[in-house]
Amino acid sequence: MTKIEHIGIAVKDLNSSNALFASLFGKAHYKTETVEREGVKTSFFECGPNKIELLQATTEDSPIAKFIEKKGEGIHHIAFAVEDINQEIKRLTDEGFKMIHKAPKPGADNKLIAFLHPKATNGVLIELCQEINR
Amino acid sequence: MTKIEHIGIAVKDLNSSNALFASLFGKAHYKTETVEREGVKTSFFECGPNKIELLQATTEDSPIAKFIEKKGEGIHHIAFAVEDINQEIKRLTDEGFKMIHKAPKPGADNKLIAFLHPKATNGVLIELCQEINR
Repeated sequence: MTKIEHIGIAVKDLNSSNALFASLFGKAHYKTETVEREGVKTSFFECGPNKIELLQATTEDSPIAKFIEKKGEGIHHIAFAVEDINQEIKRLTDEGFKMIHKAPKPGADNKLIAFLHPKATNGVLIELCQEINR
Repeated sequence: MTKIEHIGIAVKDLNSSNALFASLFGKAHYKTETVEREGVKTSFFECGPNKIELLQATTEDSPIAKFIEKKGEGIHHIAFAVEDINQEIKRLTDEGFKMIHKAPKPGADNKLIAFLHPKATNGVLIELCQEINR
């Protein structure tokens, strides 16, 4: 794991949260992206080597909708950048961690991603992400 | 704000969580520190330009004990590195954010810190932190 790639924050309304985080960082988000198969609309802010990803549910059964219903708005996950996601999945599985995704899948922002099961990580939802070479 | 300085994670037992995160990162924490006035025992892991701070309560009325009682173990706050904390507090106050600390105070890991009120930031507890010049 080479750095915190981004922190995902679940929000109810992307437009008002975009304005809020633009005030916080002193600059606007640099892109938005909708990932239909995940039921989310996202926006990204840069903060030096790291990013903040705001996530709004687009369907009622989206994981983000369920998260907000249960816990309210707030930090949803931490994503760590990795150089070789398959190798990291293997290493972590060998270490005894439970993966939600045993194989990487495409995520937002041109990444291959895989989530660890939060029950094995002190309640923290952790994502691995590897940049896809274009 | 120049980067995510660290993410603070509330844990029940620092020893077992240190072992867990050492497995996750493939290396041990690089220091521990007790901040008596905050009622916390902390440990720090490096991940490239960023850190993970694990926080265990040392008293029953510690903010970390209350957080775990209410929400369970998990991500407690995001800390952003700033170059001039007084200037950032003024800028954010002028932007309409509410500060928990209107003036910086000493925190763990040789930092001056100030927290923003999470009600104004989508439920995310945000810390500003500035390295203290030794």
